[in-house]
Amino acid sequence: MTETADNAERDLVLTRLIAASPAALYRCWTEPELMRQWFTPPPFKTVHAENDLRPGGSSLVVMQGPDGTEFPNRGIYLDVVPNERIVFTDAYTSAWEPSQKPFMTGILTFEPEGEGTRYTARVRHWTAADREAHEKMGFHQGWGTATDQLAALAVTL
Amino acid sequence: MTETADNAERDLVLTRLIAASPAALYRCWTEPELMRQWFTPPPFKTVHAENDLRPGGSSLVVMQGPDGTEFPNRGIYLDVVPNERIVFTDAYTSAWEPSQKPFMTGILTFEPEGEGTRYTARVRHWTAADREAHEKMGFHQGWGTATDQLAALAVTL
Repeated sequence: MTETADNAERDLVLTRLIAASPAALYRCWTEPELMRQWFTPPPFKTVHAENDLRPGGSSLVVMQGPDGTEFPNRGIYLDVVPNERIVFTDAYTSAWEPSQKPFMTGILTFEPEGEGTRYTARVRHWTAADREAHEKMGFHQGWGTATDQLAALAVTL
Repeated sequence: MTETADNAERDLVLTRLIAASPAALYRCWTEPELMRQWFTPPPFKTVHAENDLRPGGSSLVVMQGPDGTEFPNRGIYLDVVPNERIVFTDAYTSAWEPSQKPFMTGILTFEPEGEGTRYTARVRHWTAADREAHEKMGFHQGWGTATDQLAALAVTL
């Protein structure tokens, strides 16, 4: 994937070499039972996940805060290639219901590298301002901790 | 398709019974040579069309004004069912490059009705304000004239 200057302004990227197969990482991102185990840094929990893995299929992840408040995150899948790539966005809450605000598109890739997988999560925003806001909301720490949990789970599969 | 109150606020809809087959209307929307013949109310012309008909495939239509100025319209397809349905949006300029402003999602359906086809173009906006702006830009007249041209062409196929 070519990184243009324009994309650098709008993208937040996390990449890591993980000692697990692309298939194991893909499972962690697509099986609700696995997703609940790694997706949320404590003290938050992931209490529900739905994954209709096809272009236009719905994605719903419900996170729960320490006081029990639930935070549903709705989106749709745009592109799904098993064990290789998942693209999703919050621009729609279902096919084809526009969301209140198109904020981000997530592009996940799982590439074989050595004995493991080069895992890259690219979060692309519609505007540079949204990218900056997401970074200030704690993107790097939040996604970093979640990715530690993802890697720890994937190596056991 | 259920019309909710919320969608009524964000949708512009044109529907017409056309004496042509769903396949003929689908061809008019997907074959560049046909698209150039009906897509633009005069004095504008459609001088170029590209249609990569798959989820994430690019759509490019270049319109030309009477003084020769060209207006490229870039988008992507989200859902394509031959002879039945086409969904596209300008929220991306290609897969998966966010556009400057997500403005609309077009949902076209071609349903057999009697000897002809119930053609419905539903243009759904992210906000009620964008819907209103599109209406004031002349949606009904522009799409109405284009649909007259579409129907005239489709019955000859």
